[in-house]
This record gives sequence, structure tokens and C-alpha cells, in this order.
Amino acid sequence: MVVLLKKNADANQAEKLKAWLKSQGLDIHVSEGKHQTILGLVGDTSQVDIDLIRALDIVEDVKRIQEPFKNANRKFHAEDTVIDISGVKIGGGSFNIIAGPCSVESEEQVCAIAEKVKEYGATMFRGGAFKPRTSPYSFQGLGAEGIRYLMKAKKLTGMPVVSEIMDLSQLPLFDEIDVIQVGARNMQNFTMLKELGKTRKPILLKRGLSATLEELLMSAEYIMSSGNEKVILCERGIRTFETYTRNTLDITAIPVLKSLSHLPVVADPSHATGIARLVRPTALAAAAAGADGLLIEVHNNPEGALCDGPQSLTPGAFKQLAESVFKILPYSEKFR
Amino acid sequence: MVVLLKKNADANQAEKLKAWLKSQGLDIHVSEGKHQTILGLVGDTSQVDIDLIRALDIVEDVKRIQEPFKNANRKFHAEDTVIDISGVKIGGGSFNIIAGPCSVESEEQVCAIAEKVKEYGATMFRGGAFKPRTSPYSFQGLGAEGIRYLMKAKKLTGMPVVSEIMDLSQLPLFDEIDVIQVGARNMQNFTMLKELGKTRKPILLKRGLSATLEELLMSAEYIMSSGNEKVILCERGIRTFETYTRNTLDITAIPVLKSLSHLPVVADPSHATGIARLVRPTALAAAAAGADGLLIEVHNNPEGALCDGPQSLTPGAFKQLAESVFKILPYSEKFR
Amino acid sequence: MVVLLKKNADANQAEKLKAWLKSQGLDIHVSEGKHQTILGLVGDTSQVDIDLIRALDIVEDVKRIQEPFKNANRKFHAEDTVIDISGVKIGGGSFNIIAGPCSVESEEQVCAIAEKVKEYGATMFRGGAFKPRTSPYSFQGLGAEGIRYLMKAKKLTGMPVVSEIMDLSQLPLFDEIDVIQVGARNMQNFTMLKELGKTRKPILLKRGLSATLEELLMSAEYIMSSGNEKVILCERGIRTFETYTRNTLDITAIPVLKSLSHLPVVADPSHATGIARLVRPTALAAAAAGADGLLIEVHNNPEGALCDGPQSLTPGAFKQLAESVFKILPYSEKFR
Amino acid sequence: MVVLLKKNADANQAEKLKAWLKSQGLDIHVSEGKHQTILGLVGDTSQVDIDLIRALDIVEDVKRIQEPFKNANRKFHAEDTVIDISGVKIGGGSFNIIAGPCSVESEEQVCAIAEKVKEYGATMFRGGAFKPRTSPYSFQGLGAEGIRYLMKAKKLTGMPVVSEIMDLSQLPLFDEIDVIQVGARNMQNFTMLKELGKTRKPILLKRGLSATLEELLMSAEYIMSSGNEKVILCERGIRTFETYTRNTLDITAIPVLKSLSHLPVVADPSHATGIARLVRPTALAAAAAGADGLLIEVHNNPEGALCDGPQSLTPGAFKQLAESVFKILPYSEKFR
Repeated sequence: MVVLLKKNADANQAEKLKAWLKSQGLDIHVSEGKHQTILGLVGDTSQVDIDLIRALDIVEDVKRIQEPFKNANRKFHAEDTVIDISGVKIGGGSFNIIAGPCSVESEEQVCAIAEKVKEYGATMFRGGAFKPRTSPYSFQGLGAEGIRYLMKAKKLTGMPVVSEIMDLSQLPLFDEIDVIQVGARNMQNFTMLKELGKTRKPILLKRGLSATLEELLMSAEYIMSSGNEKVILCERGIRTFETYTRNTLDITAIPVLKSLSHLPVVADPSHATGIARLVRPTALAAAAAGADGLLIEVHNNPEGALCDGPQSLTPGAFKQLAESVFKILPYSEKFR
Repeated sequence: MVVLLKKNADANQAEKLKAWLKSQGLDIHVSEGKHQTILGLVGDTSQVDIDLIRALDIVEDVKRIQEPFKNANRKFHAEDTVIDISGVKIGGGSFNIIAGPCSVESEEQVCAIAEKVKEYGATMFRGGAFKPRTSPYSFQGLGAEGIRYLMKAKKLTGMPVVSEIMDLSQLPLFDEIDVIQVGARNMQNFTMLKELGKTRKPILLKRGLSATLEELLMSAEYIMSSGNEKVILCERGIRTFETYTRNTLDITAIPVLKSLSHLPVVADPSHATGIARLVRPTALAAAAAGADGLLIEVHNNPEGALCDGPQSLTPGAFKQLAESVFKILPYSEKFR
Repeated sequence: MVVLLKKNADANQAEKLKAWLKSQGLDIHVSEGKHQTILGLVGDTSQVDIDLIRALDIVEDVKRIQEPFKNANRKFHAEDTVIDISGVKIGGGSFNIIAGPCSVESEEQVCAIAEKVKEYGATMFRGGAFKPRTSPYSFQGLGAEGIRYLMKAKKLTGMPVVSEIMDLSQLPLFDEIDVIQVGARNMQNFTMLKELGKTRKPILLKRGLSATLEELLMSAEYIMSSGNEKVILCERGIRTFETYTRNTLDITAIPVLKSLSHLPVVADPSHATGIARLVRPTALAAAAAGADGLLIEVHNNPEGALCDGPQSLTPGAFKQLAESVFKILPYSEKFR
Repeated sequence: MVVLLKKNADANQAEKLKAWLKSQGLDIHVSEGKHQTILGLVGDTSQVDIDLIRALDIVEDVKRIQEPFKNANRKFHAEDTVIDISGVKIGGGSFNIIAGPCSVESEEQVCAIAEKVKEYGATMFRGGAFKPRTSPYSFQGLGAEGIRYLMKAKKLTGMPVVSEIMDLSQLPLFDEIDVIQVGARNMQNFTMLKELGKTRKPILLKRGLSATLEELLMSAEYIMSSGNEKVILCERGIRTFETYTRNTLDITAIPVLKSLSHLPVVADPSHATGIARLVRPTALAAAAAGADGLLIEVHNNPEGALCDGPQSLTPGAFKQLAESVFKILPYSEKFR
């Protein structure tokens, strides 16, 4: 961390600042110039509150040089984290496709889709029982009933199940869910992150719509610093000025997260693009860039049903996507 | 709402779609051209799920023309909503400055600041007992103890108190808090919004970092459709590519929200700018643009204390700001 | 400037880097820690190419601490720059409204509008002869003929005239134009900036749609370092995810630019909002925040003519806006 | 195009609008409802100025439904455009890597790099003689001398050469350059686009930092409507709030552009990421997503030279990248 003092900073206050910094366990190297004084802070600055220092009258600016996250940091944990999810491994040398419908609608629906996606190569099943919807007038999910249907699909296929939690009060319902998903809108619901850190469940943490990669890693840090190291990071598109696609998938986030952190990284091309015909090319890109897995929405839209988002693939389209992904994988950044 | 059918759309499916739309209570006007067919839907489309329609094979695009919010919509409620907060009115012909420290630190601190800001013109007091912090290693607030200190300040000054809730489990602690603040990171915590809609507490709803104005109004709609009409909207800056300021205050959001909705609109120049010397000019701008009030952070930083954010004003600076704001108000968009 | 060396950086290469930095006239202060080495560079770093250093194998990161602009920097020029435009002063203790139509359409149009806006308080006239349009099929402006009409309006009213240049080949036509406007899309047309720096014309430089404030000041620096110090900075809205308004006016840019630079700063609420009814509240906000002037679009749309953008005011609406602005000015950040 | 009239719109004005729309060759279908009237416009709306209509008092909103570009539109030109560049084909069934240094520095440099990149699989050579730099104090390129060096490299290797033009005055110097590049900052330099449309040179058109895909296609339309159909589109990253990478490569832009347009689409992972170690994974992703080619920066940084940006690869790293790309290609969206 580097602190730039103001020109003509009060010497007394500067001494107080230095004393306080030393009390935080930091070494200080002072560079005094004609126009400015720079304090170079050497040591563990991850727990120093940068805003507190910037607030001081004598300080012109503070720049962090080391990453502020620790448990999630590859510098302190060189090996890839591999998470065992009821026997399915994610991270390290594995690659997983997590597939299923956006919303759980009925037992028949989830079971039918689960069987199909398993047949075509998915290793985990996803489905939403609690749905975060922009409008209070839109379908909000089946809730506890939806969770029960997901358990039926799990029993039928043996696939571990991923589902999204929207509030801590729902936690007891997730007892048999294998992976708890934290959605983009809850990425900085810090109270929830801390509580999820006290469980031993794997957590699929989606990047917020306007979250930087550092903020995503800090949210992972919330979970990990509470004791739960089983975090899967998910790039699902960020919000930009471009309106053609629902969001903009930040493809480079994949190699960046893989280099900064040891945690598994998956991508969600369905939510990122919001348009079914764009899912496969975006999925191929994410696999090529080194993702550890993909989240793919699949529906079994019987003719005329008005039930799924425009980003969902039919089982047939999912089969084609999965085949294409498995073919490209050996040549991807991960396995090349 | 306007639905554009694909060229050569299957006639059978088009009929099914039309029948379904009619069953939703909508009138359909068909414009058939050589290259495309347009369905104009007339009626109450606020409860129609636009994504469901867009998902259909025969549909090329859907555009919403009416706003999807209803309770918050000025079209159906022409008069300004005025909320009575323990005797202090917000909205309509009033203007309020809500001031106080970012974080509650001690009884002495909150009481000292509360007395000062009241003296200088604030009508409500704010202070954070639960603090949403990017890093798990930063100070997370005093919690229940902080709420108690806020109650002391209320008792001392008579000012109603605004404080932020971070999770529903904290709701019982907010019993005596006059206004519950929903922070930017929780603006789409829909479960919480619905529950807050069941209380009768005024809710100060902050715009999310990447939330559109329509999404902010839809979140207000969540609260209102659960039965609580006492919502105060807050523009507090959005996230853009500009890094000089912490966020970018969207000044035009104020007249836009005032025209789309009847709810009171306040601005938070402290969080938006993140830099103390920019708070006053930005506050003057927000007042000039027609805001119903301001949220201003004030601290009483004893020399050398490392406790407040760089966006906080000293009581003296707050006095100057308040005086300037009260002078400009009669010439603002609201009172001109 | 601060250079962070990689852990285990090659000592030989580090010495080469230090020697090169010294040859650039910089003093180097080395902070060696267990995990990293920081070089604090003290001196004039405005001409050091930060990317060149970041490219080196041994360098982990470089952070600039001083602003990279010099001629435009208030640190080296404490007094406000006041530009005399054919007798009209901008900057310092003055405030100017620059008004006129988006596009020049006819001699009658510009003359009629010019007389009206002068009567209502404008001190400069604006009109576009060359129009940057997203579509090649949209009206591209009257060109040389439009410039002639503007000169008629100048002769009639005595007001100095501002008009936009789109390419250097048009420069000879701007001989009698008082202020040359560089549009947002040309803010980083560096060849043009350099050539405009060789003229002695005042330049109205608009911020690019995605330009940071530092980049805007660097573009001013291009003009100034070529010898022309008469630069007026213009905040005209940036591109964000919000789609309700055409752009998002960055209101805080006004006090930021005023503090970083001595150049005059004006705001353009017409282009920023794109909606006529939002122009006045946004103009009041810009005046309140300390702007040195405003750019306002005014049209005299005879009934049924399809000729002006939705952001233009009628002369009557402009009169109301100007009156409101003049009333609020004494209480603004600039004059308080 | 759909026009929504205001409630209680003046009937007289509405008739005038309809008459004007008909005079533009459009059919009008009127949907009258209790609350609103919708005009559905059927016909060629690409040349209708949407802002003119939106400006009218009686109009509440206008929504475009058809794309406003024509020459670039795949709907009117189903086959991929294949451009022959001095014998090298781009688009259709081909894939090209365009490699070379960011800036031309010397004859030795460009010739050495050109030979290497050709050996490793590049089919075109790139190098900047005119450099758009944010700071006037940074190296601005060798200009005409740089062009001469590029010609030497062309003669030596036989590879066609791509180089960036910054101003029309430089056009004569590009006589022997095979492809003229229009940089991101000039994407909406409409005067230049029109003039380049009068040449018969292939144009590599880079997406602007904050340009939507529609705007990129409209800029291609500028070139094409002036008579030059040889346009290559380039995704090079957009500006977002994320600061870890220089820009955010919009990977889905590749399949979107391929579906909307018949023009070749290439990606530039070097500029998008700004960090050498992220270039290969991002290049693999772009190839996987269906790009017709890549732009890759390569330098031959002799030890200690301070001459290239941090995004450049060494020839050795380029060799690895090219090998990886060629291996993944058969499984990409383009060739699968």
C-alpha cells in the first residue's frame, strides 16, 4: 500500500499516522521529494481499511498494491482447489456442465429434463425454486415445493443439485441441496455470505451485475473467512451500455480469476446472453478460455407452453452444445 | 406492448399466442406488412411477463411501451405522496436534510453529531449500526448496541432516525427506528422488500449501483404491492467507468423519478462522490434539480481518529452546506 | 509515480530500470520489504510513459500519483483562465448561456432564434452546420451554407458564434466562427486537436461518451501543448447502462474539473438528457454545481415541421429556463 | 417502427404526422385503445430519422423494430462476404491471424517480427506508424517513415499490411498499405468514414470504446453507402467499470455481428486485455466463438528496451498462441 501525503502536510499529524500504521504491523518506507512525500507500506495490508486513511486531512491519496483478499488468493494457495460435491469433483483436472431449467415448474418437468441432460453429459442438475424477479407481478418460483421436485430429480438421476437461495430464512430448506447458489443480486448480501460461511455446503457465488473481480473475490473471502472454503466462482455477465444482449459476458474474467485465485471458476452463458442462439458460441468461448465448468439453462418447452426464458435451450440444442464443448475441451486453455 | 412476429411465422402458433394474450385481458391490433407482422397489445400489460413472450419461436421481438409499475406510477396517482415520519413530513411541499455519521461508534459521538446537525437545520438523523463493507476484515458496525445509541440521539434531539437494515433477521431491532433504509446492495433483495412491505415503516430505498430507474421503481413496487406505500426513493450514484469519484451521481434521475412517480425523492451526495470537498456542490445541484431532501454524512472526527470515511463533512462544513442549500432552495426546480 | 517490482525480480534488470528512470530526471526512493520492492519516483512524471514501464518483465504494477497533465493543471496555474471571445468573457467571474438550434436549417431560422435567445439572456449563439449523425441516411447538415447563415445571425445580433468542426478539411470555413466546437466523438481525434492547438481560436472541447475526466484534460493538454491555451471544457453526459435518458450528465464532473484545472467549464443539459422537459432541472443543477456556463438547444419549430431533436426547447421554454438560471446563480457554488 | 401517441393527442396533428409518414413511403396500421394509440409503420424505415418523430408534441415514444442498417445487413445479403486482400482471403471459410508490433520503431524491428510471425502462421502483418496516444507527451509514431518500414516488411515476407490512419490528410501515404485500420477513437469520425468509402481499400473498422453493436454496424454502413463494401469488423473490448483489464472484450459480439451482418469479424485480444498473459486464453475464446480472425500484438523486445506495451507477446509466446489457436479452430463455432 502506498500513501501520498499532501504538500505541506502537518508534520505532527504525519507522525501520528506513521505511528498508527506501525501499530497495524506495517513497515514504512518514506520517500520525501520536493513536491510530495510517499509512504510505502510493506507487510500484510489486507486488513487495513483504505478509506480510513484516505479520510485524513493530510493524505492526498492511497493506492493499494497488494490484493485485499487472502483465503481466496492463489499467492497463498498455489494448488487448484478441488471441491467434492457428493462424489462429483469440480476444479483441478475436471470439467462439469451444470444444466437444468431456469424455474422448477413441476415434478414431471424437472425429472424429464434431468434425465435428458444427464444423458447428454451434464454432471450436475440446476433448477430454481426461489426466483429473483424484477417485477413483483412475475412468477416467483414454487418455493419449498420446487425443492421437493429437485430432490426427486436427484434421486432419479443421482446428479447433485444446485439451487439458488434468496434469503437466510430459506436455509433449512436447502438441507439436501448439494450446492447453494448465491445469485448476482445477492453477491454483496454480506450477512447471508457470513452465514453461508458457517455451513459446510459448497457455494456457487455469482458475480454481481456491476461487481469488479476484486469485489467478487472479496465476497468469496466473506464465505471463506467464516470457515467454508468450498466456493465456486461464476462469471454470468456484467451490465454495460450494450443492449443487444441481456448482459456482457466478461470472458477474460475466467483467466483473471484463475490466476488470482485457486477456486473453481464456471461461466453462465445462458444468463449472460439472454438469447438461446448465442448460448453455444459463448459456451465454447468460456470453455476455450479455461473455465472449470458451465451453467446451461435447458427447458423442455412442449409446444405452446409459455414457461421459459428466451435464453433456454431445448434438450436437443443442449445435446449439440455439450458435444461441441466436449470436442473443444482438449484444446482449451485448461487442458492444452 | 408491441410484439413483432418473425417473417413466415407459423400461423397456427400465431393464433395460439393471440388467444393466450386475449386470455390475459388484452386487446390485440394486428398490423400485417409484407416483411413483418406487428401485434399491438392494448390494456393493462404491467402484469405480463415480457420474457415469456419473447421466448416463443415465432416471436422476433417484444417492446414494452407502458411502464411495468403501477402503485408507484404517477399516472395513477397524480398528487405527490407525503410521508409523515413521527411528525416530520417528506414529499410534497417540504424539504428535509437527513444527516449523521456513516457508522455509529459511540453514544457520545451520535449524540454530539445529532445535536449539531439539528442546530444547523437537519430534520432527521441517520447513522449506520449495520455496515455493508466490501471486505470481511473491515469494521462491520456496532449492531444492536449501535441501534441503542441512535435511540439515545433520538430521545435527546427529537429527530426521527434513519438506519440501514442488512438482513431480515435484524428487523425486530428496528422497532423504534423511524425509517428503515435499504442499501444499494440490497435494492433487489426481493424477499426483504416483500417483508418490509408488510411492515408499516417508511422505507428509504437506495438505487442499486447498476440499477436502472425502472428497476428502482419496480423494487418500490415490491414494497408497495405488499401493502406499504411509504417509500422514499434515493439517488446515490451509479457505477460507471469514471474512477475519479466513487460513483457517478445521476442528477437527472431526480426529475425523471419525480415525473414517473409520486414518491418522495432524495439524493445522497456523500456516497455518490466519496470525497468531502465535492459534497456541497453536488448537494446544491441535487436541491436545484428538484430533490425532496438530502442525505449528508457528518462526522466529528477528533484529531487523529481514524474512524470516518473521506466523504464525511465536519459539523462546521455541514453548517455551511445547509446554509447554502436553504438559500438556493427557493430558486430550485421544486419551489421556483 | 510508484513502481512495484515483482517478487524475486532480476537484480540486473532492476538496476537497468533505475538507471533509465534517473536518466528521465526522476529521483528514486526504494522501499524493500520481504515480499516486494516499491520504487517511489519523485519529480516531473507527466512525460513518463506508464505503459512502457508496466511492460517490463520485472514490474508487477505501476501507479501514477501525480496528474499527467500540466498546462491544464490548476496546481501550476492557480487563477481561473478567462477567455475573451470577441468581447464576451468566459471563466472567472462571468456566466454565459450559449444557445441556438441543433442544426442550422435556414437563414430565417437561425436569425429568428438568435434574436430570441439574445433577448432572453444568451451571450453566445450556437448552431451546427456539420452534423455528426450515427446514420449515413440522416441529415448531415448544410455545411458551408450553414456557416454563412450563422454569420448572418452574428451580424444581426452581435453575438459570438460557436459551431462544430468534424474534420480538419473544414477548418478554412471556420475563419469567422468565434469558437470551434470539438464534439464528443472527436474528443480523442488527436491529429485534429494538435492542429487546433496551432490556431488561436477558442476551442469548446466536449467530453467523449466514455472519456474519463483525466482523458478530457489530456485532450485539452493536446491543444494547449500546441500553443493554444483557450480551451473551454464541456460536460455533456457520459454513456452508462441507464437508457431512460440519452446520456447520464456527470454533475460532479463540474466541481472536479474546476478543482483540477483553471479552464472554464460549461455543461450541455440538452444533449445529456435528450428530453426537453428534463433540460431545465438539469440546467439548474449544473449552474448550482458551479458551471461557468450552459449550452442550450433552442428551436423555433413551426407547427408540423419535423426538424428538431426532442431535446430542444422552444424560445418560450428557453426564456423560462434562462430566468430560472439567472435567479439561482447568486446562490450557486460559483457565486455563493 | 412503432409510434406511441400521447393520450389525448391533438387529432389534427396526428393526421399531419400520418400524412408525413405516408409521404415517406410507409404503410400505417393504427391500434386505438382506451389509453393509447399505437401506429405500426410497415415498410423501409431504415432512412427514417427516429429523433424527428420523437420530437413531436403528440408523440410519447417511438421504437425501432427493424435494424437501421442495410448494406451491412445479413437479411439482404445472406452469404458471408469474402474480402480478397492482395491474395489473402478473409471471411467465409478462411481464418487469419494479423500480427505485428503496436508501433513501428525501426526497419530491423518490423522486418524481424514480420518474418517470425509469418513463420508461425500469421497471414497478414500489422504495425502502427501513426499512434493515437492519450497524452501529447507520449511517442506519437514514426509517421511516413514508419509506413516505409512496413513496406519493407511487406516486400520481404509477401504478407499484406494493415496500418491505422488517424486523419484524412494521411490518406495519400496509405497508397500501398493493403488494409486501412480505423481505430476505436475514430469509429464515429463520420467525415473520414465517408471518404474511406470512396476508396477501394479494405477497411478494418474497430468498435469504439462505448459503441453499441448497432453503432458499429452503422459506421460500417457509412463506408459501404459511399461505395466501399470491403469492411472488416473488429471487436477490441469496450469500456466498463472493471479496471483489472484495460477493456472488457465482449465475446458475444462475435456471434451477434456474424448473425446481423455478412461482413468478416475479427477480435483483438491484445488491446482488449492489455496484459500479455491474458492474450492467449482470450484469443482461444474469440476463435471458439466464431471469429474470422485475430489481431495479435507481437514485439521482439531485446533485453532492457523500453518500447512495447504490456499487452505484447514475444515471438515465442506468439508461436504458442498460434499453435493453440490452429488446434482449437476445427472445433470452433465457425468450423464445427
